[in-house]
Amino acid sequence: MIVVIQCTDRVGLVAKISGLMAAENLNIVAMHEHVDKGENMFFMRLEVTDQPDADLLEQKLLQLLPEGAIVRVNPNPEKKAIVLVTKEYHCLADILVRNHFKTLGASVQCVIGNYTNLEDICKRFDVPFYHVAFENSKEEAENNLLNIISQYDYDYIVLAKFMRVLSPGFVSRFPNRLINIHHSFLPAFAGANPYRQAYERGVKLIGATAHFVTDELDEGPIIAQQIISADHSFTAPDMMKAGKEIETAVLAKALRMVFDDRVFICKNKTVVLE
Amino acid sequence: MIVVIQCTDRVGLVAKISGLMAAENLNIVAMHEHVDKGENMFFMRLEVTDQPDADLLEQKLLQLLPEGAIVRVNPNPEKKAIVLVTKEYHCLADILVRNHFKTLGASVQCVIGNYTNLEDICKRFDVPFYHVAFENSKEEAENNLLNIISQYDYDYIVLAKFMRVLSPGFVSRFPNRLINIHHSFLPAFAGANPYRQAYERGVKLIGATAHFVTDELDEGPIIAQQIISADHSFTAPDMMKAGKEIETAVLAKALRMVFDDRVFICKNKTVVLE
Amino acid sequence: MIVVIQCTDRVGLVAKISGLMAAENLNIVAMHEHVDKGENMFFMRLEVTDQPDADLLEQKLLQLLPEGAIVRVNPNPEKKAIVLVTKEYHCLADILVRNHFKTLGASVQCVIGNYTNLEDICKRFDVPFYHVAFENSKEEAENNLLNIISQYDYDYIVLAKFMRVLSPGFVSRFPNRLINIHHSFLPAFAGANPYRQAYERGVKLIGATAHFVTDELDEGPIIAQQIISADHSFTAPDMMKAGKEIETAVLAKALRMVFDDRVFICKNKTVVLE
Amino acid sequence: MIVVIQCTDRVGLVAKISGLMAAENLNIVAMHEHVDKGENMFFMRLEVTDQPDADLLEQKLLQLLPEGAIVRVNPNPEKKAIVLVTKEYHCLADILVRNHFKTLGASVQCVIGNYTNLEDICKRFDVPFYHVAFENSKEEAENNLLNIISQYDYDYIVLAKFMRVLSPGFVSRFPNRLINIHHSFLPAFAGANPYRQAYERGVKLIGATAHFVTDELDEGPIIAQQIISADHSFTAPDMMKAGKEIETAVLAKALRMVFDDRVFICKNKTVVLE
Repeated sequence: MIVVIQCTDRVGLVAKISGLMAAENLNIVAMHEHVDKGENMFFMRLEVTDQPDADLLEQKLLQLLPEGAIVRVNPNPEKKAIVLVTKEYHCLADILVRNHFKTLGASVQCVIGNYTNLEDICKRFDVPFYHVAFENSKEEAENNLLNIISQYDYDYIVLAKFMRVLSPGFVSRFPNRLINIHHSFLPAFAGANPYRQAYERGVKLIGATAHFVTDELDEGPIIAQQIISADHSFTAPDMMKAGKEIETAVLAKALRMVFDDRVFICKNKTVVLE
Repeated sequence: MIVVIQCTDRVGLVAKISGLMAAENLNIVAMHEHVDKGENMFFMRLEVTDQPDADLLEQKLLQLLPEGAIVRVNPNPEKKAIVLVTKEYHCLADILVRNHFKTLGASVQCVIGNYTNLEDICKRFDVPFYHVAFENSKEEAENNLLNIISQYDYDYIVLAKFMRVLSPGFVSRFPNRLINIHHSFLPAFAGANPYRQAYERGVKLIGATAHFVTDELDEGPIIAQQIISADHSFTAPDMMKAGKEIETAVLAKALRMVFDDRVFICKNKTVVLE
Repeated sequence: MIVVIQCTDRVGLVAKISGLMAAENLNIVAMHEHVDKGENMFFMRLEVTDQPDADLLEQKLLQLLPEGAIVRVNPNPEKKAIVLVTKEYHCLADILVRNHFKTLGASVQCVIGNYTNLEDICKRFDVPFYHVAFENSKEEAENNLLNIISQYDYDYIVLAKFMRVLSPGFVSRFPNRLINIHHSFLPAFAGANPYRQAYERGVKLIGATAHFVTDELDEGPIIAQQIISADHSFTAPDMMKAGKEIETAVLAKALRMVFDDRVFICKNKTVVLE
Repeated sequence: MIVVIQCTDRVGLVAKISGLMAAENLNIVAMHEHVDKGENMFFMRLEVTDQPDADLLEQKLLQLLPEGAIVRVNPNPEKKAIVLVTKEYHCLADILVRNHFKTLGASVQCVIGNYTNLEDICKRFDVPFYHVAFENSKEEAENNLLNIISQYDYDYIVLAKFMRVLSPGFVSRFPNRLINIHHSFLPAFAGANPYRQAYERGVKLIGATAHFVTDELDEGPIIAQQIISADHSFTAPDMMKAGKEIETAVLAKALRMVFDDRVFICKNKTVVLE
C-alpha cells in the first residue's frame, strides 16, 4: 500500500506520521520525504506492506497533520491513461508495448490522434483509436476531444508528441493531469520547431522535457529531462532523429514516476520522490 | 549538527528517532534513511540546525536503538586526511586546490609520495610532503609510512593514484579509513594496467572507481563510479589521458560524500545517503 | 550509395580513393576513415550521392588498394535479420516496432524463441515466430534452429535476450553475423546472472554491452556499451528492471550502426565509423 | 605537424589535399574533415608526422584550394592565453594546475581579476596577476584591461568566470579569441543569475556552456556543453555548487579542443574535429 502526503511543514511531522504507522502496526518498507524550505511544504511517500482500512487511515492522518494537508492512502495502484498523438509513432509505440505487457503502471483507455496513421498500431494492440481532425476549427476539435474523453475513466492524459497547442480553456479542465513531452531541454527552445532552433543555435546537446501542461505554453512543472550529445555533423533532421530516442526515454521515465505516485506538484515545480 | 546512525532494523525506528528529536526540540532540516532488507540493517543521516550536548544525545539515542547500534552525534565537522601519491598529479592537485580553498570538507595533514616529483606542488600549497621510497623492501617502506602517519591526527588516508600495492598487514591497520581511486570500472580490469587491458578488450567506455581498501586487491566497498565514452580511435595512452579526468571527478565525489558523513559501510557495500 | 573499405594501411590511400571517386564524377557527401596504427589497418566508409555500376567500381577500387582489401560497394541498403529470444519482451518489442515503421535499417525475417510467450507480439506485427525447445538436447535444438534459419535469407542474427549459450559449432557457422546484447558492462560480470553479480559487488553503475558473438562466451568484439547510475537502494530485481531500459537502448544503437554499414571488425575489436 | 584548412566546398578537395600530401611524402597520421552542406563549407584538420617547410606547404595548399581558403600549417603548437577572473577559483585553479604541469596545451601569460582574492593562487604558481577594478567606470576598466593585455603576446583570452559584461567595443577587438564559460545550458538561462533562474524554473538538469564571445551577450558560437542531473532537493546554492564541477570540466574540454586546433568557427556555430 502507498501513502502520499503533502502539507505545510511543521517540526515533528515525521515523528507523528511514523508514530501513527507504528501504532497501527504498519510496516514501512520505503519512506521518502522532502521539505521545501522556501515554500515551507512537506512531502512524503510511504510504502507499507500491509493493507489496512484506507479511509480510516486517511482520517487519522488528516487529524494528525496541519490544516490543508493532502493525503492519499492507497491511490489507484494502477492508473488509467488516455493518450493523444499526432503522426510520430515512437512515444506511442513505447507506451503501447509497456501497456500490453503490463509494465506501464497504467492502463491505456484509448488513443486519440489528429491524423489517422497511428490507428493501425493501436489496433494491433487492441487499444481503441479515435480520429479528431484539427484542420478546421480548434474549438470544434477540442469539443470532439472532450466528448471522447468523457466516455472514459482516466487519471492522466498523455500528450505523446501531440503537436497541436490546446487552448487555455481546454487545459484548465485537467489540472495536474495533462502530461506533455517537449522535444527540447526546456526552457531552451520552447514553442515550435525546437530542433530547427537547436540546429541554428549550434548546440552540442539535444534534450527532451516531460512536464505537466498549464495555461502557459511549455511553462508547466518539469517532471523529467535528459539530454544526449550532438555535434557539428548533425543536421536538423539528424537532431530530430536522435531526439526521438531521448523523447521516448524521458516520457517513459516521467510516466513511471507519475503512475507510481512519486510526483508532487508544488507551485510550478515538481518534487519527484524516486 | 549531523547525526549518523547504523543499526539492526526494527519497526518504528524512524518514529522513535524523530520522536526523540522532537522531544529535544531539535529541528530536523534534512533526513535520509535506508533499510537494507537483505542485511536487516537501518542507516540514517540527520541534519539538525541546533547544537545540543552531543554526548547526552548520543546516550539517549543508544538507549532507544537496538543493541549494537553505531551512533555518532556531530562527528568531526571537518575531517583530517593524509594523502598518498606516486607520480601523477591530477587527483592530488584537485585535492590540494579544494583543501586550499576550504571546500574539500577535510584538511590535508600531509602528502606522502613514493617519488619526489609531487613535492613541489605540495610546497606551493604549504602542505608537508614526505618521500618514502618503495624501490627496496616493501616492509621497510611501509614502516616508514607508519612512522610518518603516526605523527598526524587523521580520519582518512586517501590513495590518490598511489601505485603500490599495500600489504594486508598495513591495510588491516586502517579499516574503513583507506580510500583508493582505481582507474577502471571495477570489477572490470582489476589489478595492474587497466587502461592497457581496456584497450585490448576494445571497450567503448572508460571508467573509474573510488572504493575503500580491504585485504583483497580492488575488492573493497565501492563508494562512487563513473564512466566516459571511448571509441576505436582511442589508443591506450588516449584512454589513460581521458581516464584522468574521470578519476579526478570520481575521487572528488567520493571524498565529498565520505567527508560529509554520507557513506556507511555494510559488509562489502556502501550506502551513500546523498 | 555506400562504399566500405578495409585493407592494410599505406601512405596515400585516401588520396587514391578520393581521386578515383573524383575521376568517376562521384560526389562524396560523407567520408569517415580510421587507421589502426597497431594493426596497420585502414578502414573507410563513404557515402556517395550517385549510383554508378557497383561491380565496376568495386573492381577499380580493388585494383587500387593493397592486396587482401575488402571492398563492398553498395552493400544491401536494407539488411535482413533473424531474431532469437527467450522470454523477455523489451528488446524484441523495440526491434519489432522499428521494423514495422521501417526505421530499423533491416527487415526482420522471423523470430525464433525457446519459449512461446513472445509469439503473440510477433503475430501482432505479422512477423513469423518459431518455437524451438531447449529443454532437452542442445544439439537437437541447434539443429532445429539451423533448419529454420536455412529457410530464410539473412545478413545478421540478433540475440535479443536469448538466454541460452550456443555451442562453438553453431557460433562458428555465423562469423561476424551473430550480435548479442549482454546485460552488464563487459568484461565485468560475464556469464550468468550479471545483475545478481552486480548487486553483490555493490556497483554504482549498471551497464549493457552489444557485441558480436565468438566461440568464447561474452568475449567477442564490442559494438556499443552504455551505463546508468545505480545506488544502494537498488535490489537485484531493481537493477534488472533498470537494466532493461539500457539493454534496449544499447542494442538499438548497435543495430543502427551495424545495419548502416558503420561497423568494421578488426581482430577482437570493432571500429565504428559513426 | 598540424594542418588546418577551411574553405568553400568543392568536389575532389580531399583527393587534392591528400594527393599533395602524398606527393610531398608527408605521412598523414590523423585526418578529420567535415562538410557543412548548408553553408557549402569544407573543414579539415590533418596531423602529419613530418616537419616540412611550413610556409612552402601553405603556399602549395592555397594554390590548390578555392579562393578565400584559410590555411594554417603548423599553427603555434603551444598557444598563449590570458585569463580573466572575478572571485571564483574553480576554473582558474584547474587552468593553473594544467598550465603548471604543461598539460593545458597553452601557456598562461597572466591573470587579470576584478577582485584581488585570486592573486594568491596565481602567485603560488608564479603566474603574474593584475587587479583591474570595475567598480567605477567600465570604460576606464576596459582601458586598463587593454593596457595589460597589450604587454603580452597571446592567442586567446579566457573568461574563467569573469562576471562582468564586456562592452561590444572591447569584444570586437578580439574576434574568435575570447572564450567564455557560461553557467547554464545555453540558450536556456542566458544573462545574470542562471542558477537562480534554473532553480525557479525547477529544471532537472544543470548545464554549462563554453562559447566564443561576440557582441551579443551569451549568443556566440558554442564550443562545448555538458550537464549533470539535479532534483527537487537542490536549492539555488546547491545548483551553483554542483554547477562549478561541470563548469570546470566544460571549460577544460573547450580549451583542450581550441588549443589543439580542433575548433573552427563558421558563422555562429563551431565545427569541433575531435
